[in-house]
Amino acid sequence: MAKMKAMAMLGLDKIGMIEKEVPVCGPMDAICRPLAMSPCTSDVHTVWEHALGDRQNLILGHEASAEVVEVGSLVKDFKPGDKVIVPAITPDWEAVESQMDLSQHCYGMLNGWKFSNIKDGVFGEFFHVNQADGNLAHLPAGMDIEDAVMLSDMVPTGFHGANLAEVAYGETVAVIGIGPVGLMAVAGSVLRGAGRVFAVGSRPNCVEAAKFYGATDIINYKNGDIVEQILAANGGKPVDKVILAGGGLETFEQGVKMVRPGGIVSNINYLGTGDYIKIPRVEWGLGMGHIRIIGGLMPGGRKNMEYLARLMTYGRLDVKPLLTHRFENFEDIEPALLLMKDKPADLIKPVVRVG
Amino acid sequence: MAKMKAMAMLGLDKIGMIEKEVPVCGPMDAICRPLAMSPCTSDVHTVWEHALGDRQNLILGHEASAEVVEVGSLVKDFKPGDKVIVPAITPDWEAVESQMDLSQHCYGMLNGWKFSNIKDGVFGEFFHVNQADGNLAHLPAGMDIEDAVMLSDMVPTGFHGANLAEVAYGETVAVIGIGPVGLMAVAGSVLRGAGRVFAVGSRPNCVEAAKFYGATDIINYKNGDIVEQILAANGGKPVDKVILAGGGLETFEQGVKMVRPGGIVSNINYLGTGDYIKIPRVEWGLGMGHIRIIGGLMPGGRKNMEYLARLMTYGRLDVKPLLTHRFENFEDIEPALLLMKDKPADLIKPVVRVG
Amino acid sequence: MAKMKAMAMLGLDKIGMIEKEVPVCGPMDAICRPLAMSPCTSDVHTVWEHALGDRQNLILGHEASAEVVEVGSLVKDFKPGDKVIVPAITPDWEAVESQMDLSQHCYGMLNGWKFSNIKDGVFGEFFHVNQADGNLAHLPAGMDIEDAVMLSDMVPTGFHGANLAEVAYGETVAVIGIGPVGLMAVAGSVLRGAGRVFAVGSRPNCVEAAKFYGATDIINYKNGDIVEQILAANGGKPVDKVILAGGGLETFEQGVKMVRPGGIVSNINYLGTGDYIKIPRVEWGLGMGHIRIIGGLMPGGRKNMEYLARLMTYGRLDVKPLLTHRFENFEDIEPALLLMKDKPADLIKPVVRVG
Amino acid sequence: MAKMKAMAMLGLDKIGMIEKEVPVCGPMDAICRPLAMSPCTSDVHTVWEHALGDRQNLILGHEASAEVVEVGSLVKDFKPGDKVIVPAITPDWEAVESQMDLSQHCYGMLNGWKFSNIKDGVFGEFFHVNQADGNLAHLPAGMDIEDAVMLSDMVPTGFHGANLAEVAYGETVAVIGIGPVGLMAVAGSVLRGAGRVFAVGSRPNCVEAAKFYGATDIINYKNGDIVEQILAANGGKPVDKVILAGGGLETFEQGVKMVRPGGIVSNINYLGTGDYIKIPRVEWGLGMGHIRIIGGLMPGGRKNMEYLARLMTYGRLDVKPLLTHRFENFEDIEPALLLMKDKPADLIKPVVRVG
Repeated sequence: MAKMKAMAMLGLDKIGMIEKEVPVCGPMDAICRPLAMSPCTSDVHTVWEHALGDRQNLILGHEASAEVVEVGSLVKDFKPGDKVIVPAITPDWEAVESQMDLSQHCYGMLNGWKFSNIKDGVFGEFFHVNQADGNLAHLPAGMDIEDAVMLSDMVPTGFHGANLAEVAYGETVAVIGIGPVGLMAVAGSVLRGAGRVFAVGSRPNCVEAAKFYGATDIINYKNGDIVEQILAANGGKPVDKVILAGGGLETFEQGVKMVRPGGIVSNINYLGTGDYIKIPRVEWGLGMGHIRIIGGLMPGGRKNMEYLARLMTYGRLDVKPLLTHRFENFEDIEPALLLMKDKPADLIKPVVRVG
Repeated sequence: MAKMKAMAMLGLDKIGMIEKEVPVCGPMDAICRPLAMSPCTSDVHTVWEHALGDRQNLILGHEASAEVVEVGSLVKDFKPGDKVIVPAITPDWEAVESQMDLSQHCYGMLNGWKFSNIKDGVFGEFFHVNQADGNLAHLPAGMDIEDAVMLSDMVPTGFHGANLAEVAYGETVAVIGIGPVGLMAVAGSVLRGAGRVFAVGSRPNCVEAAKFYGATDIINYKNGDIVEQILAANGGKPVDKVILAGGGLETFEQGVKMVRPGGIVSNINYLGTGDYIKIPRVEWGLGMGHIRIIGGLMPGGRKNMEYLARLMTYGRLDVKPLLTHRFENFEDIEPALLLMKDKPADLIKPVVRVG
Repeated sequence: MAKMKAMAMLGLDKIGMIEKEVPVCGPMDAICRPLAMSPCTSDVHTVWEHALGDRQNLILGHEASAEVVEVGSLVKDFKPGDKVIVPAITPDWEAVESQMDLSQHCYGMLNGWKFSNIKDGVFGEFFHVNQADGNLAHLPAGMDIEDAVMLSDMVPTGFHGANLAEVAYGETVAVIGIGPVGLMAVAGSVLRGAGRVFAVGSRPNCVEAAKFYGATDIINYKNGDIVEQILAANGGKPVDKVILAGGGLETFEQGVKMVRPGGIVSNINYLGTGDYIKIPRVEWGLGMGHIRIIGGLMPGGRKNMEYLARLMTYGRLDVKPLLTHRFENFEDIEPALLLMKDKPADLIKPVVRVG
Repeated sequence: MAKMKAMAMLGLDKIGMIEKEVPVCGPMDAICRPLAMSPCTSDVHTVWEHALGDRQNLILGHEASAEVVEVGSLVKDFKPGDKVIVPAITPDWEAVESQMDLSQHCYGMLNGWKFSNIKDGVFGEFFHVNQADGNLAHLPAGMDIEDAVMLSDMVPTGFHGANLAEVAYGETVAVIGIGPVGLMAVAGSVLRGAGRVFAVGSRPNCVEAAKFYGATDIINYKNGDIVEQILAANGGKPVDKVILAGGGLETFEQGVKMVRPGGIVSNINYLGTGDYIKIPRVEWGLGMGHIRIIGGLMPGGRKNMEYLARLMTYGRLDVKPLLTHRFENFEDIEPALLLMKDKPADLIKPVVRVG
């Protein structure tokens, strides 16, 4: 059986290069090799925060652009040599949940998230994609393979936050957290017609990027309570929508306290620790205020990739400002991941170009 | 100035008949006299649980059918002598919030609730209705004035719970609490196409009514944890939707634990005490499960009354099983309210017929 | 290669029993044998109205309950011997369209309709089901195999009409045509909360069934213009929603003329002939009236079957009144189909029980 | 009674300055004087195409920014001297239709359109605004009074087209007609996340503006059939959504022929002549293709103005490119209207600044 190099979680708190079997292709599936890869904060959660428990030799990674090297006998629309966008979430499309617009939860909650969770991730010389026709998208002509990596997770997660928040023309939106996902929530809010956008963060690189993506006001939590700051800046009026893209469970209370009756607090932040999200009863209108609390994993699959890619093809969205650190060798995925763990001040996202 | 009798909150924990000025009619408004009235658990909250703080000589009540006795100069569609349905919630329709389908929160959260809150309620010989053209509905031919009282609050609140839960064909719904509002949530779920309906309650009268309205399974919390009971009865599978129509803040945790990814926990229960609603992080899918938490005051106004009334006119909904106790004198509103406070085993709703 | 008997379109205007190869099972698929079958007006369109052009030895039929006899290697949830509901529409679930809640149009318009269209239908001793996990549903305990056949097409098509019309509490709905699909549109409207329901038809059997399913008013087109009749009966006011379940292209003009601003004309009637649907400009509000025109094929697949089946399991819907003619031998599918062609006065739907 | 000058329709095909009584203010209303005004193609329809029949001395105009000069006794949030945005559509907010998000059709189809239709328009020295609190919006700090006029009709109508089309991230949209309303439909599509945008038009001024607002492809109908041109440019694939903002009834057939299954053809073009809109049966999927046909008048009122204004305040939308011709005297409204009638090649919109 053919072997390949891969970057894996060796066990709790340990990562390293390993050798592992090249994955086998089923009749609906594809085998791909990465062209560009990026580590994600989720990989950090997995290894150093033990989000998935102990795993040994689990190949990490769920953000990549790739080239198809093999396809199953039932695959119709892809062939070896095709360059592709690969979503982080690759659902089983026949599942009942997928038939209900809940493909993220096919056959069970969060079960559409397969890479580096249910199966090996994309940080191998080769990786396996289930249901290739439904889960790959052709790389559009002219799209850089590095930019394409941002379509795996950062763009769809941030934009899902704006979708869950049902941002509409002229609405005032607060985005809590302006790492790469929060930045894409800012961009996604503006591309759904937001008017004023408060972005809560402090790192200069991210602040600059937030402005680039359309934030009108930067709120630094180091300057005081963010609820008070936002209400004061907004003339005492609550905002229409809140997107939670960073911080801990306390952000829900902040969100409810700054949003209007009928508003939405939309979470796209993986909540790694704590027992309870706490919703303040009085500000939630005694249960009568029509403030909706919602949170969800990004939708995966081909359709979402194709449509979001068009935003880049037609110049509506430029992901280049996210890519602050570049690498060029397969083995560099290790230092790239360590960067993501250590979060130096000038980091937004690292990318490793291997194709 | 003309005087009238009215049943009022005299102060904390005290009610009684008072004499007060007949209200004055503005150009858009109407003055009505009640034909039938019903006390609500909210009146109990107001007086004995101090939900609105101390109030002196505030006329209670927000459930009535009535006859118009005077209308303002700009009122187009009502005249003295008209018999009407009166919603508990009477919004200011020109408000920006009302233009956003949030008329309950016109000019501020919950501000569409005016009777026995912002102004005197309906338990007077006369009462005032703001914006009569928008807030009254003509009593349909053949509708009993007692049945019509159930349209003020019980029917629209219960049905709002089913609307917020977005109940759809064949869905499995759990309704927590089967007082009159919960019973209407059962009926409203069935009239949105629910399949299996779990009703959580214990009082025999209410259990019987829940079955009448279409509950397929009765869950008695005295028999053990309701989450476990419902999951066990449902073959280990979560339900599609949960409607909270009784109990305290703990019901939210139960709701999240029994609902599927992508489901909705819909609250129509006024949350009178406690600091925080607690959402269990893990069962909420680590913030990624697409379980929506929503709660809201019933929509008021004429349109909602007219459409819900048609369900009664055309035989889809029979509210008679709600009306367990009948009175016939204006002064009986006091013992009727005390019944609501004391909740004897055989009570669902009392009604006082005076027209 | 094994052979089987089947009831086929031999060519234009000709049907008959043929012998054909038993279909082959792919890795995601199943082979089933019918337990009960029902011919559909679409089969009549196919053979005698040439809706699909000339076809030779195309096995007819898309309504059946069945038993699984073979499954592919990747099928997870079905095994030989399982009794199943079979939807008329069996989408390719990985298609981009299926990821957009348009599985009916997977890989192209109407392409989710495979039986007796793109491939052989269900009127064979055996038939093939693509993507079995996504396109079959287990027959619920206690459901009669004849009743289950109504879930293939009649129930989901009629209920889709009510869904497209977005019927809501208390709305007044007009259903044009009360064959079996129109009857299910009546039932589906009531189960979404319709108040008054006008049913347009004339055959006594169907009129009786329409009342059973909740029609409040029967309009006979033989008594005059149906628009005028409905407006007159409704006090001169337009209806909220119109569902077109029979008749020809002229029904759209009627629908627009009887519906209110903001209303919906929802079509579930296969439009076999004519060049143009004509929307009257003035009654359509000069293009400004917010009257929506929509028409669509029923959604197929497992989820829809499972949820609709629960309406029958929990007593919300009884399909027995649809089944007016019963047969008991496989060969009887031919006279059953001829019945559907000839439409005797007492026919609603025939069913052939073979399991 | 005080008199004022006004620009009126004198009769069919005739306009001119007249003297008329200053309008009277009701208790909920306001009297305003225009600060800037713009004539609309609708005014041309009214006078020279007889869209409303014969009218004598009807003051024209429904696009203006203004200053409040008088308010009724019940007006809460406006006072003389306030500068305001004035929507073309000024609904009666208490109407049942307004409670259903159909305020355009309050008390009857299109009845929310009052200026220069049901009552005198805004081209007088003074004009009357019904329900001022619901129908005026404060001019935001820093907004030019000329820009504000574009909020009366051009911006909300164009953006309503994008809303009716439910434009979503990455969708391909075709906008037929790129006069000022079509241009705003282009801008509105981009601000709802459109990817590729085909704009159909030919006048160089408008083509340049369409590109400014985000059109990616210009289709000139003089170069051949627009359906063929768009399909060819789009790789043979239909577009997701079509917005009709110009042309005649034939555009609906074009729209249906270029849109995908499940797509929307959204009309914001006042259809002045012709008997029927014709929907081609085959391309409409034989009634089964889920292609929605919808058309509607812009929503009026304060909320819509406030939210759309924020797009200008926060730099998302610049209306200056629409304003090609400027005038400075009240009497210039006559030549400005004649410009709109004659449509010289370099015209998009004229504006008359009088404040």
